[in-house]
Amino acid sequence: MPVITLSTDFGWDDPYVGIMKGVILGINPRASLVDITHGLSPQRLPEAAFKLAAIADYFPQGTIHLAVVDPGVGSDRRPLLVQTKGRYWIGPDNGLFTRVLQVQREAKVFHLSNFRFFLKPISNTFHGRDIFAPAAAHISRGLSPSALGKRITDPLLLDWPEPSFQKGTLPGQVIYADRFGNLITDLSRGIIGKYFRGNEITVRIGSRVIRGIQKNYTPQKPGRLLALFVSSGFLEIARSLGSAAEMLGYNPEKGMAVRVS
Amino acid sequence: MPVITLSTDFGWDDPYVGIMKGVILGINPRASLVDITHGLSPQRLPEAAFKLAAIADYFPQGTIHLAVVDPGVGSDRRPLLVQTKGRYWIGPDNGLFTRVLQVQREAKVFHLSNFRFFLKPISNTFHGRDIFAPAAAHISRGLSPSALGKRITDPLLLDWPEPSFQKGTLPGQVIYADRFGNLITDLSRGIIGKYFRGNEITVRIGSRVIRGIQKNYTPQKPGRLLALFVSSGFLEIARSLGSAAEMLGYNPEKGMAVRVS
Amino acid sequence: MPVITLSTDFGWDDPYVGIMKGVILGINPRASLVDITHGLSPQRLPEAAFKLAAIADYFPQGTIHLAVVDPGVGSDRRPLLVQTKGRYWIGPDNGLFTRVLQVQREAKVFHLSNFRFFLKPISNTFHGRDIFAPAAAHISRGLSPSALGKRITDPLLLDWPEPSFQKGTLPGQVIYADRFGNLITDLSRGIIGKYFRGNEITVRIGSRVIRGIQKNYTPQKPGRLLALFVSSGFLEIARSLGSAAEMLGYNPEKGMAVRVS
Repeated sequence: MPVITLSTDFGWDDPYVGIMKGVILGINPRASLVDITHGLSPQRLPEAAFKLAAIADYFPQGTIHLAVVDPGVGSDRRPLLVQTKGRYWIGPDNGLFTRVLQVQREAKVFHLSNFRFFLKPISNTFHGRDIFAPAAAHISRGLSPSALGKRITDPLLLDWPEPSFQKGTLPGQVIYADRFGNLITDLSRGIIGKYFRGNEITVRIGSRVIRGIQKNYTPQKPGRLLALFVSSGFLEIARSLGSAAEMLGYNPEKGMAVRVS
Repeated sequence: MPVITLSTDFGWDDPYVGIMKGVILGINPRASLVDITHGLSPQRLPEAAFKLAAIADYFPQGTIHLAVVDPGVGSDRRPLLVQTKGRYWIGPDNGLFTRVLQVQREAKVFHLSNFRFFLKPISNTFHGRDIFAPAAAHISRGLSPSALGKRITDPLLLDWPEPSFQKGTLPGQVIYADRFGNLITDLSRGIIGKYFRGNEITVRIGSRVIRGIQKNYTPQKPGRLLALFVSSGFLEIARSLGSAAEMLGYNPEKGMAVRVS
Repeated sequence: MPVITLSTDFGWDDPYVGIMKGVILGINPRASLVDITHGLSPQRLPEAAFKLAAIADYFPQGTIHLAVVDPGVGSDRRPLLVQTKGRYWIGPDNGLFTRVLQVQREAKVFHLSNFRFFLKPISNTFHGRDIFAPAAAHISRGLSPSALGKRITDPLLLDWPEPSFQKGTLPGQVIYADRFGNLITDLSRGIIGKYFRGNEITVRIGSRVIRGIQKNYTPQKPGRLLALFVSSGFLEIARSLGSAAEMLGYNPEKGMAVRVS
């Protein structure tokens, strides 16, 4: 049974997600639907791009990831299919797949332009239902991506610069706070390892200074801020038995800088 | 694999939904469970009735929709099964299926009264587990609706009048605000088309006046209120790059009138 | 298709649950994933233990329940598998399965120690992904629990005393408030029936006194507090057409005592 995952900013209370599931099952009753999240933020594409890339390596070959964060629905942004290492990513061409495209090499990108596979009449307000869900369902039945549209080479990418090491310091950004108040940054273990040795680093965030890298959340001193490389391989700021986000006054709309030295 | 969807007001954090899923899988391990939402409002049946009808056309024939918003559980309101065009709707007889019954013609309604298919002992507080989940599971195994109870012709319907055109004006109501702050009204494209031509209409809501109908959410002027027919075919009031609900001070407990002229 | 349920405190918005689902499907593409809840409280293990036990009897034999509330991840607490009556419970050894172990007799408990079945490299921060999800997937493919680790006899249990009847009074605790504001206590119908006859009891909670046991939520007097045995068999304090939790000022962090006499 082909797996189709769903990641949207539709929230959990409206009928939109259910409608997309119905459309998929109407085309392929054997599809196995897996909710990732419907709580992506409509305003914060970098966060969504990061979260999508986080699941990329864990699903089996053939998985189809349908993702919709789409403030520009109905405008002329293109609907896309990205093919990477036997997985498929379907959603709007607005930068949502920036991280997937950066991390997964040798991706092919297709512009979903073949009207034949759209739900009709196509609305201007719900491409998730009319374009993305049918495309995912048809791919899950074995349709070739090239049947859905032409290859393109210019998908829109969010402006996401590699952190640049300067004067002994590596600057980064908090991408989002998770449910526990952990702050996930865009500084990977790889990039930090390029400039610093072992755990002998100092992390500055807000007005705080954190020395060294811990291996887990186990409290040494309750309430203490910790820096660690979490499961995704990125630097995270956590607080033992508490919320780092709250302690540091993290505001997702403003973001927060972090510096490693 | 037969699809059983679940729509409830049980919330996402309590064990009630999980218990219903267990009961279904205990009777039919091959059932494919699909969450629609568990965030329906316990107090607002019209909103729930509207959301259920919104998904009706999208699921394949044979789908079983289990729905529970049930403030009267344990009273003598009847448990129901509604059969429309090869789909099944199972839940309490409290008006929850009003819109489904209005929109889907030639429905047959059954009173779930055959104790044989209930979970025993039947509680007075959780018919979702004891009556609705087993009924859905048995239907998914091919049981005939008439085996579960007798046909009835008087399901309870919410008092939902057709909007009445008077003095050049068509009055309607906001049914709910979605996650994006869009206000979904009960005025369909069909009823508006009956009295007005094309897009030359004026929509009044709160103290605001909106002229014309837009085709999508694409901002012309950020912050501007828009009227559009959304994917479900109903008139929606939206705000480009913002929340119409917030701008207009929409309060779900009070509702809000809308007038088209 | 083997059923694997997921109950976590990961919330609904982060990628952690999706990652676990991907790991499971990577090992067993035929597993049927069922979300119970991802809104368990990271701080309140008794509540989680109670909610898990509430679903125990409803899923079919062979079901695998994966549960993660794990503030001590990365410390030396053991990863566990509990086998009871043909069901499996997989999660951390921190008391999460206390109620399951109390209610389900003849449980076998295994320490998940066989590295061969872990995801590598094992992180110190995400055992849900690296240990629990693979273990659940392998069990769903028919692996024997004893292949995953050795039997142990000392799983950690929360300190959960049986209520002790003294001077005509049975004291209990509110375990949690559900979405409707109903307060679920730890006093079972069984223990109350041991000391009191029929419905002739008085329940004291906060500054309120409730006489008698009701059969359902149907309002007699709107706003009135009710005591009833709910579907799970435990004493619940509810308010007809309202929230008992709000009326009584229930604070989940402080808990609330209840006395039956």
